[in-house]
Amino acid sequence: MRQTFDDHADPSFGPKHLPLIREQLRKQGLDGFLIPHEDEHQNEYLPDANERLSWATGFTGSAGAAVVMADKAAVFVDGRYTLQVKAQVDPALFEARDLVDGGVPLYLEEQAKSGQVIGYDPRLHSPDALGWLQISAAKAGAVLKAVNDNPVDAAWASARPKQPEAPIVPHPVEFSGEESSGKRARIGEAVAKAGADAAVLTAPSSIAWLFNVRGGDVIRSPLPLGQAILNTDGTAALFLDPAKVTDALPAFLGNQVTLARPDELAKALEGLKGKKVLVDPAQSSAWYFDTLEQAGAEVVRAPDPCALPRAQKNAVEIKGAQTAHARDGAALTRFLHWLATEAQTTLPDEVEVVSKLEAFREATGVLKDLSFDTIAGAGPNGAVVHYRPTRKTNRRIEPGQLLLVDSGGQYLDGTTDVTRTVAFGQPSEEMKERFTLVLRGHIALARVRFPAGTTGSALDVLARAPLWEKGLDFDHGTGHGVGSYLGVHEGPQRIAKAPNTVALRPGMIVSNEPGYYKTGEYGIRIENLQFVTEAEPIEGGERPMLGFTTLTLAPIDRTLIVAERLTPEETAWLNAYHADVLAVIGPQVEPEVRVWLAEACAPV
Amino acid sequence: MRQTFDDHADPSFGPKHLPLIREQLRKQGLDGFLIPHEDEHQNEYLPDANERLSWATGFTGSAGAAVVMADKAAVFVDGRYTLQVKAQVDPALFEARDLVDGGVPLYLEEQAKSGQVIGYDPRLHSPDALGWLQISAAKAGAVLKAVNDNPVDAAWASARPKQPEAPIVPHPVEFSGEESSGKRARIGEAVAKAGADAAVLTAPSSIAWLFNVRGGDVIRSPLPLGQAILNTDGTAALFLDPAKVTDALPAFLGNQVTLARPDELAKALEGLKGKKVLVDPAQSSAWYFDTLEQAGAEVVRAPDPCALPRAQKNAVEIKGAQTAHARDGAALTRFLHWLATEAQTTLPDEVEVVSKLEAFREATGVLKDLSFDTIAGAGPNGAVVHYRPTRKTNRRIEPGQLLLVDSGGQYLDGTTDVTRTVAFGQPSEEMKERFTLVLRGHIALARVRFPAGTTGSALDVLARAPLWEKGLDFDHGTGHGVGSYLGVHEGPQRIAKAPNTVALRPGMIVSNEPGYYKTGEYGIRIENLQFVTEAEPIEGGERPMLGFTTLTLAPIDRTLIVAERLTPEETAWLNAYHADVLAVIGPQVEPEVRVWLAEACAPV
Repeated sequence: MRQTFDDHADPSFGPKHLPLIREQLRKQGLDGFLIPHEDEHQNEYLPDANERLSWATGFTGSAGAAVVMADKAAVFVDGRYTLQVKAQVDPALFEARDLVDGGVPLYLEEQAKSGQVIGYDPRLHSPDALGWLQISAAKAGAVLKAVNDNPVDAAWASARPKQPEAPIVPHPVEFSGEESSGKRARIGEAVAKAGADAAVLTAPSSIAWLFNVRGGDVIRSPLPLGQAILNTDGTAALFLDPAKVTDALPAFLGNQVTLARPDELAKALEGLKGKKVLVDPAQSSAWYFDTLEQAGAEVVRAPDPCALPRAQKNAVEIKGAQTAHARDGAALTRFLHWLATEAQTTLPDEVEVVSKLEAFREATGVLKDLSFDTIAGAGPNGAVVHYRPTRKTNRRIEPGQLLLVDSGGQYLDGTTDVTRTVAFGQPSEEMKERFTLVLRGHIALARVRFPAGTTGSALDVLARAPLWEKGLDFDHGTGHGVGSYLGVHEGPQRIAKAPNTVALRPGMIVSNEPGYYKTGEYGIRIENLQFVTEAEPIEGGERPMLGFTTLTLAPIDRTLIVAERLTPEETAWLNAYHADVLAVIGPQVEPEVRVWLAEACAPV
Repeated sequence: MRQTFDDHADPSFGPKHLPLIREQLRKQGLDGFLIPHEDEHQNEYLPDANERLSWATGFTGSAGAAVVMADKAAVFVDGRYTLQVKAQVDPALFEARDLVDGGVPLYLEEQAKSGQVIGYDPRLHSPDALGWLQISAAKAGAVLKAVNDNPVDAAWASARPKQPEAPIVPHPVEFSGEESSGKRARIGEAVAKAGADAAVLTAPSSIAWLFNVRGGDVIRSPLPLGQAILNTDGTAALFLDPAKVTDALPAFLGNQVTLARPDELAKALEGLKGKKVLVDPAQSSAWYFDTLEQAGAEVVRAPDPCALPRAQKNAVEIKGAQTAHARDGAALTRFLHWLATEAQTTLPDEVEVVSKLEAFREATGVLKDLSFDTIAGAGPNGAVVHYRPTRKTNRRIEPGQLLLVDSGGQYLDGTTDVTRTVAFGQPSEEMKERFTLVLRGHIALARVRFPAGTTGSALDVLARAPLWEKGLDFDHGTGHGVGSYLGVHEGPQRIAKAPNTVALRPGMIVSNEPGYYKTGEYGIRIENLQFVTEAEPIEGGERPMLGFTTLTLAPIDRTLIVAERLTPEETAWLNAYHADVLAVIGPQVEPEVRVWLAEACAPV
């Protein structure tokens, strides 16, 4: 079993660890210290060794920060985590504040005192984020000081887990679709076009994509933690812990790529003296900028040149994604069949649901990992957007309730992410009406055609308008980018209310996942992955329009759909989708499942 | 007759005026000079005296620029004007280039030579725009130099029209809904909250709104050209040409407002030494920043504090808008009746159409001006988005053609802007299908409910999705803000593809004007004004949602609608809208018109 159901932290962490951190502050002569959630690699998911925020406070959310002063401390979380932070963090030690509204900058402005010195680890903060913090500290008359020895790490000491040393392996061209040499040549040209002589790459997903390698340093994502310096001629230096370098790797990388140790990175950056060096100020930490500028290099601030090419999957990656989704869809369909039959009477709990689904995926024989810990929310737990079942929160499903299951698998040929909401017993009229509103939003975003240059922000309203009309909404983004056997959350594209200037381009994979959540009662989400298709002419039209093709293949619970609320176009989409599901999944599954699937995919 | 049909410029302008400008460049020792479309007030519509770009080149579009060098020159226009610039500007003298793609900065980078000095008038460029130009000139090794005497003005000399001197009159509280003293007190507080001691206001619409005055310096908009310094206590200095100050004005303004001459402005700015002064870098020209900084004031760069309060109309302004639209709708309905009856056989030309409509509006007895020159496009002229009929382009309507009429009136109680597209004889199936797509987009944007915080950019797709689905689109924004007896184009809100971070707020008036244009054949646009309504609870819903209420009242041509293509909700909207039109306009018009209107408003 890959997924566990334990709590990773508890409220005792603060009382145990805060005195140790304060002792380190005193030793270093600091009046305070900033603890961001982000680590050295600005990852979303962190290796255990870098869970500094959780170790210091007990809070395990995927975004947040803390400030520790000599006589007070605060933890900062966004709206998703206001309930969770109360359960996980001792309020006597940490004031809980809003991460977005004011956030750490406002706290510094209010709480720092004139003359105070507040430390930060320059490897953990991007220059963009640091700018605001420095202005706020200055308003209070305090200064921020970059420190070499992170006081949290010093306090953690020998109890701190080791940095991961998962082997880094070649990712064959049958999956990547393009040799690393070709990628390095064209990214090198892009670096030259941006006016730079070299680029420093620090995003693990960029390292993975550019060099066609995969690692296992971060749970649920095959990311290799490392850095690279790419020259405009396509040659590169790749900085990896030698313990992670597998025997096959040097030959696979070829003679244009020099392997080096992480402790050689600073010296290599200093060697860029006099050169123009591209670094992404939203992705790379202040340490890179400081080191390069002190060495006399000229920093060119520009987006990571791998980000867009990585997002636009090539034909091989799209074909791989389709194969992975056909395989994953069969596993999911077996699971949905189990939910619709045996489970309707045995009424499993969430842990059993998660275990059963994992077993079906594992049975494919080629599952590399889950894409993320499966969310299985029974009844009221389904309304907690970032829910993950633990032994403590585990609920048994009851008749008349909805079960929301959001899950995915990592396969060599692709990464999946799918949410289905299933009724147990007879759903209420309200559940059906609201499920149908969510479905109408989902279909609008699946069907839309749009001209080149359109962003995900521009399309977001399509998924929400049916809910808005009824005075309802959901408090999360509508769609995120997805990697190819890489992170399940991958930029730079995004479908959300928040403005995003990145246009959707052919080959980009995005999720389409509108939802509705009734606190204390139930949650609904319908999520498929879909990829952007090339602009194609439309009969009778004048302009080619991009569109989406759906990747995910699994039935949507028809017992929750009020068919007469759908327009003829929406009905046609749903029936065509279910016909596709039956055609691709039907031949893969056992006769009993196939019979059930045919019924689940019957036209409405 | 208010509207004229003459051309304001012609291709002979370049050959006549370019040598005069180059002579001035030589005198001032300049190697080149930048000529933006914008004037000292950053107006959309310019007084004749400030039509520098048109005088220098012949180009009369509403956006653009030129660069004059000793041996070459270029004119820059956007996609809307690529045909027009060819007709208006001599290609032997001016290279025509894209204003947006590269624009003036790229031209400087390519064409300027090392050591060259290129002049600009600091009163005509915002600091935001200048920044890019300076970077580009520097890349070529050239420098930009602010000049006191604009070489175009010097070359224009005595032939240049006088600056306008239209009288500035009080705008009574029965129309504005709030005394100037109250506005100044709350804007003063907003200035203090932004961390400033005073604000310099340079937008004529802000002057008009804040002091409750209207002028006539700019055709079609009752704008008073002037500037003001507002203090945080609500006192202000207002800089106006004494020739424009009417007898009633000083008493109306009261003793908290000091009147001063425009030539006293520089000294007044110098008097702000040591103060923090708010100036809008997107609205006010570099001259204000330079003058304040040289005087030792600290400039606080922030949006014009009047812009948002002006956009959110109060209850009196909304009531006035409704009254103005009921009156204007009756005039427009008489016009549409004429088009549907007599004109179907007399087949008037565009000039006759414009004249007839103006006569109906004039007959209200309270028309202050048109909101803009009426666009009447018969057949293929309807497909030219920024068309204005002239004697040269005037076309007679033919049976089987569409006529597109976009027009509006300025009334003391409100500004109107409406587009209707009318069939002459039997429209083609294609015309009807595409009209119906445009109508479906219009209805989607009229019906939508949305949460607080939603921007116009987020809603734009609703008006386009039906067209996109068929491979069609339109190349202009979907909606612009509208003033209250002020500019017909007013920010900061906007409904368009381009990102805009300004949320739609209750009281904001916006147009809803999707269209479709088939080059060489016909144009379709359906435009109503609508205002944002307060967030109200929805039955069975959980969250209050803002919405829109339509202001414009005039029938939409039913002969162009394919009723079976509408959803039940769209049909319901259309029929309810037409019932409103009949209820409000019917009682105002003559029996013959009323009978026709009842039929035009019958349910589909």
